[in-house]
Amino acid sequence: MTQPIVGIIMGSDSDLPTMQNAIAICEQFNVPCEVAIVSAHRTPERMVEYAKTASARGLKVIIAGAGGAAHLPGMVASLTPLPVIGVPVPTRHLSGVDSLHSIVQMPAGIPVATVAIGNATNAGLLAVQILATSDPDLLAKVQIYRDNLHQMVIDKQNKLET
Amino acid sequence: MTQPIVGIIMGSDSDLPTMQNAIAICEQFNVPCEVAIVSAHRTPERMVEYAKTASARGLKVIIAGAGGAAHLPGMVASLTPLPVIGVPVPTRHLSGVDSLHSIVQMPAGIPVATVAIGNATNAGLLAVQILATSDPDLLAKVQIYRDNLHQMVIDKQNKLET
Amino acid sequence: MTQPIVGIIMGSDSDLPTMQNAIAICEQFNVPCEVAIVSAHRTPERMVEYAKTASARGLKVIIAGAGGAAHLPGMVASLTPLPVIGVPVPTRHLSGVDSLHSIVQMPAGIPVATVAIGNATNAGLLAVQILATSDPDLLAKVQIYRDNLHQMVIDKQNKLET
Amino acid sequence: MTQPIVGIIMGSDSDLPTMQNAIAICEQFNVPCEVAIVSAHRTPERMVEYAKTASARGLKVIIAGAGGAAHLPGMVASLTPLPVIGVPVPTRHLSGVDSLHSIVQMPAGIPVATVAIGNATNAGLLAVQILATSDPDLLAKVQIYRDNLHQMVIDKQNKLET
Amino acid sequence: MTQPIVGIIMGSDSDLPTMQNAIAICEQFNVPCEVAIVSAHRTPERMVEYAKTASARGLKVIIAGAGGAAHLPGMVASLTPLPVIGVPVPTRHLSGVDSLHSIVQMPAGIPVATVAIGNATNAGLLAVQILATSDPDLLAKVQIYRDNLHQMVIDKQNKLET
Amino acid sequence: MTQPIVGIIMGSDSDLPTMQNAIAICEQFNVPCEVAIVSAHRTPERMVEYAKTASARGLKVIIAGAGGAAHLPGMVASLTPLPVIGVPVPTRHLSGVDSLHSIVQMPAGIPVATVAIGNATNAGLLAVQILATSDPDLLAKVQIYRDNLHQMVIDKQNKLET
Amino acid sequence: MTQPIVGIIMGSDSDLPTMQNAIAICEQFNVPCEVAIVSAHRTPERMVEYAKTASARGLKVIIAGAGGAAHLPGMVASLTPLPVIGVPVPTRHLSGVDSLHSIVQMPAGIPVATVAIGNATNAGLLAVQILATSDPDLLAKVQIYRDNLHQMVIDKQNKLET
Amino acid sequence: MTQPIVGIIMGSDSDLPTMQNAIAICEQFNVPCEVAIVSAHRTPERMVEYAKTASARGLKVIIAGAGGAAHLPGMVASLTPLPVIGVPVPTRHLSGVDSLHSIVQMPAGIPVATVAIGNATNAGLLAVQILATSDPDLLAKVQIYRDNLHQMVIDKQNKLET
Repeated sequence: MTQPIVGIIMGSDSDLPTMQNAIAICEQFNVPCEVAIVSAHRTPERMVEYAKTASARGLKVIIAGAGGAAHLPGMVASLTPLPVIGVPVPTRHLSGVDSLHSIVQMPAGIPVATVAIGNATNAGLLAVQILATSDPDLLAKVQIYRDNLHQMVIDKQNKLET
Repeated sequence: MTQPIVGIIMGSDSDLPTMQNAIAICEQFNVPCEVAIVSAHRTPERMVEYAKTASARGLKVIIAGAGGAAHLPGMVASLTPLPVIGVPVPTRHLSGVDSLHSIVQMPAGIPVATVAIGNATNAGLLAVQILATSDPDLLAKVQIYRDNLHQMVIDKQNKLET
Repeated sequence: MTQPIVGIIMGSDSDLPTMQNAIAICEQFNVPCEVAIVSAHRTPERMVEYAKTASARGLKVIIAGAGGAAHLPGMVASLTPLPVIGVPVPTRHLSGVDSLHSIVQMPAGIPVATVAIGNATNAGLLAVQILATSDPDLLAKVQIYRDNLHQMVIDKQNKLET
Repeated sequence: MTQPIVGIIMGSDSDLPTMQNAIAICEQFNVPCEVAIVSAHRTPERMVEYAKTASARGLKVIIAGAGGAAHLPGMVASLTPLPVIGVPVPTRHLSGVDSLHSIVQMPAGIPVATVAIGNATNAGLLAVQILATSDPDLLAKVQIYRDNLHQMVIDKQNKLET
Repeated sequence: MTQPIVGIIMGSDSDLPTMQNAIAICEQFNVPCEVAIVSAHRTPERMVEYAKTASARGLKVIIAGAGGAAHLPGMVASLTPLPVIGVPVPTRHLSGVDSLHSIVQMPAGIPVATVAIGNATNAGLLAVQILATSDPDLLAKVQIYRDNLHQMVIDKQNKLET
Repeated sequence: MTQPIVGIIMGSDSDLPTMQNAIAICEQFNVPCEVAIVSAHRTPERMVEYAKTASARGLKVIIAGAGGAAHLPGMVASLTPLPVIGVPVPTRHLSGVDSLHSIVQMPAGIPVATVAIGNATNAGLLAVQILATSDPDLLAKVQIYRDNLHQMVIDKQNKLET
Repeated sequence: MTQPIVGIIMGSDSDLPTMQNAIAICEQFNVPCEVAIVSAHRTPERMVEYAKTASARGLKVIIAGAGGAAHLPGMVASLTPLPVIGVPVPTRHLSGVDSLHSIVQMPAGIPVATVAIGNATNAGLLAVQILATSDPDLLAKVQIYRDNLHQMVIDKQNKLET
Repeated sequence: MTQPIVGIIMGSDSDLPTMQNAIAICEQFNVPCEVAIVSAHRTPERMVEYAKTASARGLKVIIAGAGGAAHLPGMVASLTPLPVIGVPVPTRHLSGVDSLHSIVQMPAGIPVATVAIGNATNAGLLAVQILATSDPDLLAKVQIYRDNLHQMVIDKQNKLET
């Protein structure tokens, strides 16, 4: 198996339906990724271990999804020099506003690259774009992906006109 | 020096003016406490160490103040079986609503006893009340503190009437 | 019957499905508890009586759940020196944000240990952790509970890998 | 001294600058009022006593101002059949949104007539309007007050045109 | 037919399910009321007429329900010296927070007695309590209503114990 | 004097500093405007009169600024077929969020063209753009205004580079 | 076919159910309109082209609907001197509050005439009212539309009375 | 001069005090950057040009700061395959919540890596970390930066103890 370069983690398997879209993007761009359940609150030391060894294990980017008092992305970010992308998972009572606050409002020194509430697709794309900064082929693929988005809108327009 | 039984921690010395009130309450009730700067994001492993050894070092309750993506209280709570009290420190742009969400919205399994935004006095009092569950003398002192609050209102009323 | 040491109260029987989780935790930890419907607004004097006699009746901790203008936890806290844990019950129109504000934003002098919106499990656990500050056996049980949470994450991870 | 028919209460003398406007309206309309510091949290039993005896003492309307977890208006309302007007006092961190939620979101059965954040003038006017439902002279005075408001706008308009 | 003394108005018949509870309370207390569809935005002059003639027609209190940019309660309040009770009707996208802001945040001079989002029961009760300030029999009925609320809690408690 | 075609109204002269920018834009584009204090709540009938006669008096667009329970723009809109532009005036406690909700959340049938909180400049520009739909010279002036905005950015860029 | 004078655009065909109401209003008032899918993010250059040529192609008003980080209305407004009406499309997690902020909070210089969340009917009406500023027949039709709204309320009232 | 690889852009020179921290981080890490005023609304075509040529000109990452209806980061992201980091600039009335919503809530397909409100330091650090994914020396520098953050906390702790 190819060495994964993107780590996709989440606090609970209940976050998997949301995070599945990030996995799908990695697969679509042929970016090898690994998926793990790592809970900041239920397995804090496992999380420390995961984050501290991430770079040495060959990971280049980490995507972390969490909901509520969503500490996973920020804590992982504090334990690795790799860029960490945070996905605020929607929550039952506060619709993910709590997750968003917990992920995006990091103090100076430790950024988390935050995407829209529940938008793991964009987390996957952002990981790909980060990797593409040193990979012209991947950058070209991002451009093709964009062209396809453009074409989809044109197709919808054409359908509208008929 | 007496063995501290309450640990008062915060992510930055800029939180000290807020957290000072918790220290003052411990001193007022003669509850020995220790004060430390422990940052979830800048010193994550120091935080793990602090939290994991807290119980064995004799602490009974931990008070943690943090602002913004305020991960300190929840992360410490995940690393110790001791009760952890969280103080949402007010923030410049979101007034501490972000801190409140990051502290109070913990997932099932790992509670943080959250007090009002910026209200470290109440964090100190809650620590005292928790200790008082097994210390009748301390419980009596809490009652006296309450009687004094009551008297202060009466005094203000009397002053109002003159 | 064993003397209850945790009182679990709520303003209405419609709060019972939410509060049931706190009862379940007490039972799981063999902490004797009593359950009562005590409404701040519909039975204010019953509430005063309940709170004022709580300590003398042997209670050590009170858990109070309420929604909307959720006055029960704060009012009970003002009438007893015991630690009071507040559960913001979700509301139909404001999702429990009103309950959270009414419970957590207590003035200096009278804390309420607030947990996440709708999270009575954590209220139960916090009560257990408070009692465990003077009960090493109970503290050990909390640690085992945590170990089980950890194991559940590992099991989910293993399942994910298959 | 004339028997007061409006009771104006607040949890702390720090609320007095806000509540002063309610007193001023009562004086302007020659409605006898009494002013008291009654704290739901620091003097809960005094509050119960105040509210329970209010009607028998001759009060017709109660105005209660409070901030944060603002329980005073709702608790007083639960202890008297008199109409209770609530003034959400502005708070330092949440601008009185917490006060507003704690006062206005009362459960079915116990209303609090809530006015705008910090707007004790309107609390005073509402008390006057309530009393005017059975006092044609007072109703006429409310109409004159309205006519004056109207004239003030006209005067400003005239000033603008010069 | 008895002369109505409470006017219950709403902007649209879609508000009727919400406002029905206010009608029910008036009927329960034998307070004669009239019900009308009066839209601030679709029938502004009808609204002016309704509000300006309300007092002369014998009304003592007006209850107005509205949602979204909910101008009905405040506009009616500006056109009559009678006390006006506002019911923020829940809205599809903002859950009635927009209605609440539009109703409660009235400027100094023109109060609207605002109740909880969607809580027309409390609007009805508040109208009754206002009328009871000059009607001892009605005040006694309010007390009985309260006693019944109290009894309902006791009954639920008893049911809980069985 | 030229017949005004834009009416700029506000509830109070305290709104004038905010609304001044709308007047300045009209003057800059040589669009004759009239300015008036018209309060929805303190001069409701004057407001009805103003709005109902606006079109016949030659006005083409109305700009209305208001704060808090900001009913002026929506009420005027309900009384005239002319387009009404609403400016949510910032408020002390809720920063104009209440004004925004009261102005923008109009029901189907009666739109208010809402601009940003406190942004009367944009209200003026929108009025000019509306008039320009039938006035090519004015449309050309809008384009020049845009070109100037563009040039200002370029100038700032040049200044930055030195 | 008649030359369209209103352009109705949206970022995705998923916005069509919301935007359909704006089309319906244009049809009801016999205002020729064109409908297009133009995505600010997926077809940015198509959007630039659309906006820059809009005026020359004969459009007088543009209605743009978008959700989330809703950039379409503001970007189109920055590229044409025509008035642009923005419809905040409701979103899954934030109910359209994000859309509202992204559309209404435009900087000084480039207004977007914003209507209520999801209220494309009002966007259509506003476009009609803007066109009516130079078309007395259309203005008369707006007045008739208003009269019908009024009559609908009266009919509902009559139905209520039976 | 070295070829810049990070582009730092903002809509107005009033955003410069906020964005200065991103420039400072680039300088501290010896990452060549260029700074430009590029307004989405006042210079939309300049923005299109800037974004479309960014990759070909040698940029690897773009940092964009904007406030209010903050369209710059998202629009630039839609026009380049490079990763774009968005800084929500604080706003006067909504404290940057509007900026945050406009930047973070991007639709699937076009991510913006969002950092905390006003936190351009973290935007700079994130750019450095992204570049470090293919530059081991830079990665080592990030680790040293982290070690320094850690040391600063220790120093503060030592100072506290004296």
